[in-house]
Amino acid sequence: MSVQPSPDQSRATRYLRPDIVAMAGYTPGEQVRDCIKLNTNECAWPPSPAVLAALQVIGEDGLRLYPNPRSQAVREAAAARYGVDASQVLVGNGSDDCLTVLYRALLAATDTVACPWPTYGLYDDLATLQGVRIIHADYRVDAQGWHLPAALPRLGAKLLLVANPNNPSATISPVAELRELADRHDGILVVDEAYIDFAPAGSSILPHLADHPNVVVLRTFSKSYSLAGGRLGLLFGQPALVQHLMKVKDSYNVNYISQAIGVAALNDVDYHHALINRTLAERARLEIALAQFGWTWAPSAANFLLCEVGERAGELYQALKAHGILVRYWDRVLLRTKLRITVGRPEQNDRLVALLRELIVDS
Amino acid sequence: MSVQPSPDQSRATRYLRPDIVAMAGYTPGEQVRDCIKLNTNECAWPPSPAVLAALQVIGEDGLRLYPNPRSQAVREAAAARYGVDASQVLVGNGSDDCLTVLYRALLAATDTVACPWPTYGLYDDLATLQGVRIIHADYRVDAQGWHLPAALPRLGAKLLLVANPNNPSATISPVAELRELADRHDGILVVDEAYIDFAPAGSSILPHLADHPNVVVLRTFSKSYSLAGGRLGLLFGQPALVQHLMKVKDSYNVNYISQAIGVAALNDVDYHHALINRTLAERARLEIALAQFGWTWAPSAANFLLCEVGERAGELYQALKAHGILVRYWDRVLLRTKLRITVGRPEQNDRLVALLRELIVDS
Repeated sequence: MSVQPSPDQSRATRYLRPDIVAMAGYTPGEQVRDCIKLNTNECAWPPSPAVLAALQVIGEDGLRLYPNPRSQAVREAAAARYGVDASQVLVGNGSDDCLTVLYRALLAATDTVACPWPTYGLYDDLATLQGVRIIHADYRVDAQGWHLPAALPRLGAKLLLVANPNNPSATISPVAELRELADRHDGILVVDEAYIDFAPAGSSILPHLADHPNVVVLRTFSKSYSLAGGRLGLLFGQPALVQHLMKVKDSYNVNYISQAIGVAALNDVDYHHALINRTLAERARLEIALAQFGWTWAPSAANFLLCEVGERAGELYQALKAHGILVRYWDRVLLRTKLRITVGRPEQNDRLVALLRELIVDS
Repeated sequence: MSVQPSPDQSRATRYLRPDIVAMAGYTPGEQVRDCIKLNTNECAWPPSPAVLAALQVIGEDGLRLYPNPRSQAVREAAAARYGVDASQVLVGNGSDDCLTVLYRALLAATDTVACPWPTYGLYDDLATLQGVRIIHADYRVDAQGWHLPAALPRLGAKLLLVANPNNPSATISPVAELRELADRHDGILVVDEAYIDFAPAGSSILPHLADHPNVVVLRTFSKSYSLAGGRLGLLFGQPALVQHLMKVKDSYNVNYISQAIGVAALNDVDYHHALINRTLAERARLEIALAQFGWTWAPSAANFLLCEVGERAGELYQALKAHGILVRYWDRVLLRTKLRITVGRPEQNDRLVALLRELIVDS
């Protein structure tokens, strides 16, 4: 079949919101299949065998019929796993979907959103999409780590977002500090716990949800559950809030298959713990290996390290890429001397370290 | 694990946008598994065996890694199938997701959206979510069918939505009329072709896209592809427009598995045609059977019938439900004497007709 000719494109784009036309758009980390991917913080090992088994028994009617609009089975599995009620859980098509729902439900044109900075870049793009202003407050960075800026509760933001552990720093703020922030903040505080499973025990604010009705907690299946390809995220909040947020999400935002694998992943607790422990052990091994280059990093509470590399960071990123290893680099204030490296499998990390030795020590 | 107590809910909801709190939210058709479901226009038969085969070979890395953010393989398969360029295709998590992207990309607070009425109820809810006004222009209804209101291009709407075939009427407007509407409308015209595969050949505006840069066409996998559980939709438009819309969708809006089954479904053209033909044959048989009750309906170009039933419509809906058959009923102007009935499998339709005979003729 022949392809249609392309008419005047300006007639197609003139009706777009000007701020949409102007925006660059979120740039996801490069998704390249034939390389060692240490750039987007996926889990190094495969998901639970129970997940793959769940795929094998997806029936015809599961595909043919609309899925449960509220992902009820996932809500119940998450409630049982995390000690909350199912009414406190909203299931998203990834936690990015949960973030979109929050922005849309909370923010009118005159409202503002705020976050410590640098952090997950999507928070900015969602503000542009919603047509609202976002305020950045810089992290205080010292030898011990990255610390929440004291200004956060005074910014007048209706929606305050804190990634904890933070990305790209991998650092964690004490839960006591977040609880105090919640009390002092006149608005919703979202604690994005995408990486919390890699943090020390007791780091999550989730067990304290009942004390903080203005707190929303996000979790993802993309990291510790090794299901980035499955698109599943969880939002935890008060039942009344969740009920309103349900109206804002797409009616059928999570497909039947993702619901099935989500339940399987949540129920295989032992495997989940094994994935986390394996990652932590390998993180420790990688840290020892990278220390030989004189690199430093704030203590990591995640499945990646933000390494202080020095002036050659950008050049090393390119050289690694040329040799088939992808890490993450931003040519941006505070980050341009750093590389963010996901903890890979042992053989991947060994290859990384060997290559770095060639590039740094032997050159 | 014990469940947390529930604190003051008003402190959790006070930051929501007032219009979100006030809205009722879209009510999807009831999703009940243990009954004959003739209420949400799913396909009566299962999806292609190629789809089920694709599920069997989903690999660990497909789940572990982020999916292709643009669903490139689906775009290319759709481009090949529908005679457009891949750059003209945006893949959504269902066509509802495509609709959300359009609303967000096009509509600022002072803009309006319009549609003929009655139609797909989600158009209204998305307007509320986006904080914009929606204008309804009533269909002209006569013995021949439902006709587009002449006022449509004069409503000053930046976004004009026409479901063609329309839902819940199952009627189709001539493509020439839509093309004229596109020329006269100063804004984007979305032609939502969710049911187009059940319409007579030549009904789609998709082959004319090059002549109408302000037209966007939506397709779904939920109906003729029998993949409502898989959440896949397609948006066709000019490359420059699609490029901007890509910035508005969630970065990873379609998961790896849905991308795989979407490609499998698009490539199995023979099976797709067989599903459509089977549905059309069964629709014809159902029409003959329902005619015995003296019911009438405008000619259907979809996989359902909107039957004029009379004053007993609501009561019949309840009686059918009590006997395990779900159809769709709205207690609303123009619709409260009607039932919308999805074409089911032969044995389901036979059961429906037999039950109706008991309820209507024998009572």
